[in-house]
Amino acid sequence: MRATVMYKAHDVRVESVPDAAIKAPTDAVIRITRGCICGSDPWPYNDGPKENGQRMGHEAIGIVAEVGSDVHKIRRGQLVVMPFAYSDGSCMFCEEGLNTSCVHGGFFGNGGEPGGAQEEALRIPQADGTLYPLQVGEDDALTPSLLTLSDVMGTGHHAAVTARVAPGHRVAVVGDGAVGLCGVIAAKRLGAEQIIMMGRHPGRTALATEFGATDIVSERGKDAIERARELTQGFGVHSVLECVGSAQAMDTALGIVRPGGAIGRVGVPHYGPIDLSTAPFYHNVIVAGDPAPVRAYIAELLPDVMEGRIEPGRVFDRTISLDEIPACYRLMNEREALKVMVRP
Amino acid sequence: MRATVMYKAHDVRVESVPDAAIKAPTDAVIRITRGCICGSDPWPYNDGPKENGQRMGHEAIGIVAEVGSDVHKIRRGQLVVMPFAYSDGSCMFCEEGLNTSCVHGGFFGNGGEPGGAQEEALRIPQADGTLYPLQVGEDDALTPSLLTLSDVMGTGHHAAVTARVAPGHRVAVVGDGAVGLCGVIAAKRLGAEQIIMMGRHPGRTALATEFGATDIVSERGKDAIERARELTQGFGVHSVLECVGSAQAMDTALGIVRPGGAIGRVGVPHYGPIDLSTAPFYHNVIVAGDPAPVRAYIAELLPDVMEGRIEPGRVFDRTISLDEIPACYRLMNEREALKVMVRP
Repeated sequence: MRATVMYKAHDVRVESVPDAAIKAPTDAVIRITRGCICGSDPWPYNDGPKENGQRMGHEAIGIVAEVGSDVHKIRRGQLVVMPFAYSDGSCMFCEEGLNTSCVHGGFFGNGGEPGGAQEEALRIPQADGTLYPLQVGEDDALTPSLLTLSDVMGTGHHAAVTARVAPGHRVAVVGDGAVGLCGVIAAKRLGAEQIIMMGRHPGRTALATEFGATDIVSERGKDAIERARELTQGFGVHSVLECVGSAQAMDTALGIVRPGGAIGRVGVPHYGPIDLSTAPFYHNVIVAGDPAPVRAYIAELLPDVMEGRIEPGRVFDRTISLDEIPACYRLMNEREALKVMVRP
Repeated sequence: MRATVMYKAHDVRVESVPDAAIKAPTDAVIRITRGCICGSDPWPYNDGPKENGQRMGHEAIGIVAEVGSDVHKIRRGQLVVMPFAYSDGSCMFCEEGLNTSCVHGGFFGNGGEPGGAQEEALRIPQADGTLYPLQVGEDDALTPSLLTLSDVMGTGHHAAVTARVAPGHRVAVVGDGAVGLCGVIAAKRLGAEQIIMMGRHPGRTALATEFGATDIVSERGKDAIERARELTQGFGVHSVLECVGSAQAMDTALGIVRPGGAIGRVGVPHYGPIDLSTAPFYHNVIVAGDPAPVRAYIAELLPDVMEGRIEPGRVFDRTISLDEIPACYRLMNEREALKVMVRP
């Protein structure tokens, strides 16, 4: 089968690899019908992969092609969405909804086994706990939105949840990538009154406005902090959704959070220690977040997708074949592509 | 009147100062019947005060001696407890229970105006919002426990609340000072199942056990982390109450917190940026805390004190006069005194 492999920074190839196959009785294999390039893929694309030959991709919808002997809930032929992390669904962390900390869990496309989802098929460990069956056809119009439940919509929701968005809150979303845009959807869904999108890419901020952003702050650094404070009577926001992962994004988050407010950080952190003294001094700011337990959120978000109340699939701005993936890594890296859907 | 004044590191004196007096119509003046030396006082005692001549102390019970023309709830002659921060009780932060971020608020004994509570009398800004009347006599047997509502019991409770202690939780308390011991009381009160006291002072850890600690870890550094993990099946604790404020205490907290767990940090922070990468990697650890809005907690904690369900006053191990304060700063600094009550 064909798969996406990263050898070193800026060296991504689509090539032939051995077919995905069951290894453990709790595994399934899915034939991927839709994959994605993620806003986090440019990090290894620039910094280099974890190994020379890392299989890439961690978001997919697919059809179950095979199940192991100890898989009881997932059945061959089902259309399923795959969270970016696998989990057994039964350990104490999974039971608490923290599937990303599953004692038998791990991440797809993160180096080593299992492989990635930018390929034709994928082995899914802990299939019963990991996969979530969908009740639509393979080419349903809702497919793009359903595909975001694999990562970006769940991650935006996690940013909002960990930033404690609540009805009436003032919220800022740092970052106009796909996760930030889904963060806007999540904040609005949870009842935020004011949603400030901190981003400067016109097409994306326009989409943010359609998703519910009430204000756009296109400045950066200190100017961005000042502008966001002006928009909040000088006090800052209750909730900051940090959806970038850079040091500057975290500094902005700490600079605009209100006393007693919370920062939900879901950007893959590329910063050092967090200097809480840059937050409102002594003002009980909460720092939370990390990888989203998206598996736990699917049941909550799916009805809103199915009934069209949220349309996170609008973040996709292009659909490509496997062969176009290397070129699209470059487009993602240059911020020319917002979110890429792959049809293997 | 006589007051405690710190001139430089290790130079604390009790001397005559002008009498406390009303300055604003929202002020009151209290005659202090009980004050304290705080576990945080050794910080300026070693590092030097904020100003050459800083008035010290921020915990007290007293009798209202005088009220300004715009004070309507507090009356002359009432016995009151004074939180370590003053607050108007009506701004948006106070209404949310975050009195320490009051837009008209500030801290006692923190340099400049108002003065401190290690003296005979004190001007109380925002008297209506700040002071909390008590329904006991000046020398009631409950006085020590009531006095802890001024700071240490409320602060231990805040550590527990911000660390999200809940029924059945495994909890660790870092620090066996008065706040840590009150943290044990708070954790037990909120239903913790396991309470690990991380401390090495035998008298204090014994008191922790009486308050509800189930395990004592007297090791430090990496050994302490290892021991606490052994006590929690290797996973760490749901909630860490960081009641010291040193870099080592914060490192310990990050080392023993469980995936999805929370750190409530209430020790006055004497550390730099927090390296969240030392916490369980990618495991959604929450960092919260800061100065406790103790004023907001009095109504909740007072009934338990009045009815004897909690006895935080047991943290006091000596009662002294004003003149003995300088000597007792030395004892506190050498950890020979746990918590000192002052009868001016």
